[in-house]
Amino acid sequence: MIRINIALLGLGTVGQGVYELWLRHRERLREKVGVDLEIKKILVRDISKRRNIGVPDEKITVNFEEICQDRDISIVCELMGGIEPAKTYIRRLLEAGKQVVTANKAVLAEYGGEIFELATKRGAYLGFEASVGGGIPVIKILREALIGNRVESILGIINGTTNYILTRMLENNLSFERALEEAKQRGYAEADPTLDLTGLDSAHKISILASLAFGVFIPSHRIYVEGINEIDLMDLKFAKQFGYIVKLLAEARESRKGFEIRVYPALLPENHILTSIRLNYNAIYIKGDFVGDVLLYGLGAGKEPTASAVMSDIVSAVEYLRFNKFPLIKYPLREDKDLRLVSVKDSVFRYYFRFSVVDRPGVLSKISGVLGNHGISISSVVQIGRQIRKGAVPIVMLTHETREEQVVKALEEIDQLDIVKAKTKRLRIFE
Amino acid sequence: MIRINIALLGLGTVGQGVYELWLRHRERLREKVGVDLEIKKILVRDISKRRNIGVPDEKITVNFEEICQDRDISIVCELMGGIEPAKTYIRRLLEAGKQVVTANKAVLAEYGGEIFELATKRGAYLGFEASVGGGIPVIKILREALIGNRVESILGIINGTTNYILTRMLENNLSFERALEEAKQRGYAEADPTLDLTGLDSAHKISILASLAFGVFIPSHRIYVEGINEIDLMDLKFAKQFGYIVKLLAEARESRKGFEIRVYPALLPENHILTSIRLNYNAIYIKGDFVGDVLLYGLGAGKEPTASAVMSDIVSAVEYLRFNKFPLIKYPLREDKDLRLVSVKDSVFRYYFRFSVVDRPGVLSKISGVLGNHGISISSVVQIGRQIRKGAVPIVMLTHETREEQVVKALEEIDQLDIVKAKTKRLRIFE
Repeated sequence: MIRINIALLGLGTVGQGVYELWLRHRERLREKVGVDLEIKKILVRDISKRRNIGVPDEKITVNFEEICQDRDISIVCELMGGIEPAKTYIRRLLEAGKQVVTANKAVLAEYGGEIFELATKRGAYLGFEASVGGGIPVIKILREALIGNRVESILGIINGTTNYILTRMLENNLSFERALEEAKQRGYAEADPTLDLTGLDSAHKISILASLAFGVFIPSHRIYVEGINEIDLMDLKFAKQFGYIVKLLAEARESRKGFEIRVYPALLPENHILTSIRLNYNAIYIKGDFVGDVLLYGLGAGKEPTASAVMSDIVSAVEYLRFNKFPLIKYPLREDKDLRLVSVKDSVFRYYFRFSVVDRPGVLSKISGVLGNHGISISSVVQIGRQIRKGAVPIVMLTHETREEQVVKALEEIDQLDIVKAKTKRLRIFE
Repeated sequence: MIRINIALLGLGTVGQGVYELWLRHRERLREKVGVDLEIKKILVRDISKRRNIGVPDEKITVNFEEICQDRDISIVCELMGGIEPAKTYIRRLLEAGKQVVTANKAVLAEYGGEIFELATKRGAYLGFEASVGGGIPVIKILREALIGNRVESILGIINGTTNYILTRMLENNLSFERALEEAKQRGYAEADPTLDLTGLDSAHKISILASLAFGVFIPSHRIYVEGINEIDLMDLKFAKQFGYIVKLLAEARESRKGFEIRVYPALLPENHILTSIRLNYNAIYIKGDFVGDVLLYGLGAGKEPTASAVMSDIVSAVEYLRFNKFPLIKYPLREDKDLRLVSVKDSVFRYYFRFSVVDRPGVLSKISGVLGNHGISISSVVQIGRQIRKGAVPIVMLTHETREEQVVKALEEIDQLDIVKAKTKRLRIFE
């Protein structure tokens, strides 16, 4: 039986998961693909670090060149995370003729253009199933299964940390801070959760998905991002009163105006299937012109699901390798600076506003007057009597469809009023 | 650019869908895969039949040999349905060295063993994504994306007709007959809906999925099947009162006892995500030892979704063809007569019973006495007073876990009692 040698860069959570999967399923994989996979080398930073998964010493190295220059190693999995040295390693490996598998969304979302180009030029396989959606095989589905479709839109909940926090806040009446603390304790949030909370992690992922769907690389820095840092339990509850659940959405759609790609917390109508995605689960909705709606749901992160995705890519790499074959399906083209990305300011949404105002007659009429002047029309209002918060009471409104630019102007004006005690909360409604 | 010639067998709904997809996306596919696909020939039964999709006359033939013996045709899609001549054609095509794509679940579910074996022997690609779940790429996911997993279980709603009927009955208070009539009018049920209603269509599909998951062909005739023909609106409503929704489930799991593969209508707890799968949608839940739970959801049938699946297989066939490469991932092995399939009689479920009894004191105690004698313990009972139905009133019970064999014996005895006016309705509860 032919043996194929693999190396891993990194032995953190994902690396350990891949190693464990390999240990458990090596025999099964031999039966299924008729090839023996061997994890020959693993690059680590600190060789003295104790690891409990029983990797033999001779597999461990701190020297990247030992892997890159080993002609017996055909497939290398980059599982380190972070931009550097991961990006340089991926380039070096492709140049050295390796098949490369990576779980690195940050590198792909920022440098995907040059990396896809390099892989194409070298006729190499570049697998990145683990970069989005953990074990959910969304990359394979977009690249291969839906190839007969024009993808019209993608809508996803693709960050487990924020979905966990939003779910726990609403269902268990927790403040943002308490829910975040709990997420950290349960291992659903990292010590520094900034990337998740600010929406950047979702932006990385939707950048990759949009690039696959539309065939051209769209770097994450060109994507509008809004996180959940400023979400208040009160807003989740008001939204629920109106029949909506707040979710952090990642969206990519092609419209007549151009490409609309963005990450933002939004009010989803309760009967939308994505509102049933709770806790740390992820889900991705894809609409294709032939397939219609397809929804994929599963664990979007974690050691075992991510290892499952990496192994799927390893087997694809073996397929390509085994027959000296380069991938037929093209990678996204290089970034197109002229690509028509629709600014969020030019987009139209319905809105949720929560004003913090003094409890005095005439306030509602003043606010609605300003909104009217900017052409914003109101569909429902809830005004609640005296609150515990000293002096300020909330007025909550839902609007009809409005261009975002108008909303920004109106809220600037409203927040200047002396009857307004705090910055107005604004959330978009997803219809 | 290299051109690859394709033929279609059949120009019914699916054939037309594939032709339309090809017309619309030929250029897009050239860009994506660098190969020009040409539908060169289409086999039809009746050449005089008028078709509105503008297929040029010279592409149409009634002679299978014209396709099978044409060395310029590399990929043939069997889209005729039915066992014969489809099965013979698939065999002939594989023997002639063609790459074969089929949407034929009936042929695969009964003769998959020999067909997979033939494809393996000939080193041919056999695509069958369209045989299960319409546009939902469940075959690719089981075969490729989850290859690093031991699949523990599959649970699906994989028949749109029955799901449509069950949804409409409960939500719109329709009788089975009226819901079926409506499904026919909307094109969700065929003129002869027997295959769907009896659960056989679901059995075909779970046979294919189980064969992929467990690596050995399990023909549909070895699978326990129960359809929805005897479902009464009353039962859907009682179930709902207890917090359950009735769905036609297809299930395949590996347990210590062996393989449990079956199709049956079951009460699903309302908080189970599959209860949110409404109307003609399908969903498939897969549990793998590394990936955890993955759910796939979409349109399980229809012209366009099925065409999307066929095109995905065509592109895979092109990949294999283009590099003289046979599929690395093995097809399921030939049927194993000694495979331990657990009989439903030996399985343990909780149950829903609806007894039709005379409205007289002592009835409940008589029935529960018989159940007790068979070791069946009751978890809840609803007894409803006088009903419109002459003389008979329903008693509805949910039981604790019981071996099915006990239930069969107990109900036989109960149905003999003179206080019992009609055959007892029995449904399993899925936990």
